[in-house]
Amino acid sequence: MDAAVRQYITEHEPEYIEQLKALLRIPSVSTDPARAADVVRCAEWLAEEIERIGFPTVEILPTGGHPVVYGEHLAAGPDAPTVLVYGHYDVQPVDPIELWSSPPFEPEVRDGKLYARGATDDKGQLFLHLKGLEALLAVHGSLPVNVKLLIEGEEEIGSVHLTEFLTKHRDRLAADLVLISDTAMYAPELPTICYGLRGLAYLEVHVTGPKGDLHSGTFGGGLKNPIEALANIITGLKDADGRILIDGFYDKVRDLTDDERAAYRKLPFDRDTYLRELDVATDFGESGYTIPERLSGRPTLECNGILGGFTGEGAKTVLPSKAMAKISMRLVPDQDPAEIDRLFAAQVAKLAPAGVKVEVRPLHGGKPSIVPTDNPGIRAAQVALMEAYGKPAIFTREGGSIPVVNTFLDLLGIPSVLMGFGLHDENLHAPNEHFNLSNYRRGILASAAFFEALAAANVPA
Amino acid sequence: MDAAVRQYITEHEPEYIEQLKALLRIPSVSTDPARAADVVRCAEWLAEEIERIGFPTVEILPTGGHPVVYGEHLAAGPDAPTVLVYGHYDVQPVDPIELWSSPPFEPEVRDGKLYARGATDDKGQLFLHLKGLEALLAVHGSLPVNVKLLIEGEEEIGSVHLTEFLTKHRDRLAADLVLISDTAMYAPELPTICYGLRGLAYLEVHVTGPKGDLHSGTFGGGLKNPIEALANIITGLKDADGRILIDGFYDKVRDLTDDERAAYRKLPFDRDTYLRELDVATDFGESGYTIPERLSGRPTLECNGILGGFTGEGAKTVLPSKAMAKISMRLVPDQDPAEIDRLFAAQVAKLAPAGVKVEVRPLHGGKPSIVPTDNPGIRAAQVALMEAYGKPAIFTREGGSIPVVNTFLDLLGIPSVLMGFGLHDENLHAPNEHFNLSNYRRGILASAAFFEALAAANVPA
Repeated sequence: MDAAVRQYITEHEPEYIEQLKALLRIPSVSTDPARAADVVRCAEWLAEEIERIGFPTVEILPTGGHPVVYGEHLAAGPDAPTVLVYGHYDVQPVDPIELWSSPPFEPEVRDGKLYARGATDDKGQLFLHLKGLEALLAVHGSLPVNVKLLIEGEEEIGSVHLTEFLTKHRDRLAADLVLISDTAMYAPELPTICYGLRGLAYLEVHVTGPKGDLHSGTFGGGLKNPIEALANIITGLKDADGRILIDGFYDKVRDLTDDERAAYRKLPFDRDTYLRELDVATDFGESGYTIPERLSGRPTLECNGILGGFTGEGAKTVLPSKAMAKISMRLVPDQDPAEIDRLFAAQVAKLAPAGVKVEVRPLHGGKPSIVPTDNPGIRAAQVALMEAYGKPAIFTREGGSIPVVNTFLDLLGIPSVLMGFGLHDENLHAPNEHFNLSNYRRGILASAAFFEALAAANVPA
Repeated sequence: MDAAVRQYITEHEPEYIEQLKALLRIPSVSTDPARAADVVRCAEWLAEEIERIGFPTVEILPTGGHPVVYGEHLAAGPDAPTVLVYGHYDVQPVDPIELWSSPPFEPEVRDGKLYARGATDDKGQLFLHLKGLEALLAVHGSLPVNVKLLIEGEEEIGSVHLTEFLTKHRDRLAADLVLISDTAMYAPELPTICYGLRGLAYLEVHVTGPKGDLHSGTFGGGLKNPIEALANIITGLKDADGRILIDGFYDKVRDLTDDERAAYRKLPFDRDTYLRELDVATDFGESGYTIPERLSGRPTLECNGILGGFTGEGAKTVLPSKAMAKISMRLVPDQDPAEIDRLFAAQVAKLAPAGVKVEVRPLHGGKPSIVPTDNPGIRAAQVALMEAYGKPAIFTREGGSIPVVNTFLDLLGIPSVLMGFGLHDENLHAPNEHFNLSNYRRGILASAAFFEALAAANVPA
């Protein structure tokens, strides 16, 4: 890549870190109504930053929910490629807050890692593109390609208004490719291009027994306990080998190809290390598949939360009226979240014991995706990662979900390039989320190199 | 009963209600460390009240936890019987607070019912004896029997220091019988003497999976989810017919006698009404037994609470590190709570799936009991209830637990008389606890009549 740009980025690293900290201080928790003003403040902060680095057009565009920050720099002209950079400025909730070593919205660097909610998911990974673009603009006064920035505030709540937004603005958003950094490297120092993402179906199961809480002495033994009913349902959703027992669940699952299974086998993965780092004695999951295959190439079902009855200190002898669980499924192509919602609800109805009422409430969903790998965008990403890390990138699928990847392809016909700089142990969605600053710096280099490589078309055939 | 005493009670009913309200305003929640000062204040309030009605000796006696309020009125002399009146001034927690129609510590009368935490369990039922004694003292200037009052502040946390207390004060507490009003009438207008109580074994099950909360996208499918493990354990504790699957659990259960089963069949019980009032479609419990038998004559197991993962608003995709359930068992003679704790822990260890750590923590327990029914105390209770309700009392077992009944018999050799004035729909341990004021009034009459009848020995042979 351009030596002057590389030098510029290296020299400006300290201020780039301070700027990211400022972004991380804004508690833009999209799921929390009490944080709505902070979400808006975060959008405004980003819009000012995009203007400051030299984008001529910056707008905060309304949606039915949290706004989109949109920027355009189209001076490269109609013959140059156009890249739509997508990211999200909203973050997950912080509970359980007591497990954070430092406050989630007071960014702190420890051992070369920046700790804060959103550090890796996705503020740090989004912001590195702004810094790459800033460096190019500062050194050259121009960008080598046309760039559109689309930064949404509802990714953590299922991008609920994005499809509507993309439909409404489809002409303006036209681009050759979408560039997204919201995935992880397979391992430290192993630059990674992601070509597959799991989808999501997230639901709540509400079980109601008697009309009010009862005394377990007086009523115990008389009627079905809703906590037990919920436990029965959860237990009935998987067999002892980890296979999901929802009728029709696997019908549309695309089998892993032989090439994919071969690639999985080549990944650096050590079961003992994996289990030791998680502090569990053994693994659990669908039989017939390796752990790496199960983590990204196969669908799964997990309980995300459960609540019922008395959970405070002491021994309250209640027979509760209600119990609730949050259950989500990660989907692979060609499962459809809406269909999975229906199959799940039907199975729960079948599993529900007599004597309780059960209600299933879909919360949100997103489609799984496999992205094309034979295009100039992917080749530019390979060049960029080689520039930043000094070694070739590997291709993997990821276990997480970025439903918009599918939406961009289906709705706008634009393929995505998933060039991620996170690591799997960076606690995204959990206490002590962090981002390795070495990957932040290399991500900025890779971003600038990506735009250069795409323009120069100096990409491998 | 003495007409003057009856008239006195009737005339003083309004102030007796106001006094009970004052007692109910004190939030003496024994399980909540933040309420410790309120618990002490409640003991002091009662001590003052006992002194005011004319007891020459009143003391607040320390224990290892909340204090005991103790009073003596022994002027009837060594030839008269001595009654030890037991009750408790502590109450259950109030959660879920949002389901209360009026604040739990602001007593309110609606439709002849007094709503407040502790109204029926046990402040109202305890206080009616103080009012019966007050009436006797006011009218006659004396009591017809010797009376000792023992009012503890730890019943709702398992009477953890009472055995030690009774041992220490055993000589001073010597009595012919214990009189307790902390049970329920079988049905409205049906005066009831309880001769059997279930015991209790209350435990927590803590399940730990990975060492911290994880992202369910990145880790879902890799390891055993602790919520699912807990659901598996709970499901494994009962079969589909409601029988408890703990090895050895039923070994020491005393079978119901033919006479008892015949008495159960005679109780006024309508299954359809029962289910309709609870708003459940069907019942659930140990097969081979009727609902009334299961509710008091057979042991049961209930989940009292469950908690794990993310339970707030929205769709946080966490694979949690921990899950916890509170589980209690109601025991019948001759089950032993300490032995049941061990059997439970052993079964949970057997049921625990691989890949999680499981810890069982016993919280508290109490022995079941069957009390003798052929003694002057029971006959005095029959007379007293006939005086108050105008119809003969029935004998029943109760599903709840009053472990001290067993302690009084085993440790001090004193049988208990269980003359209850609560009703089963009065929401004890639940929101909107209340006490029917008609039973409060009749309970005061019955209390005064009980002491008179015991002294006069005008009891049926």
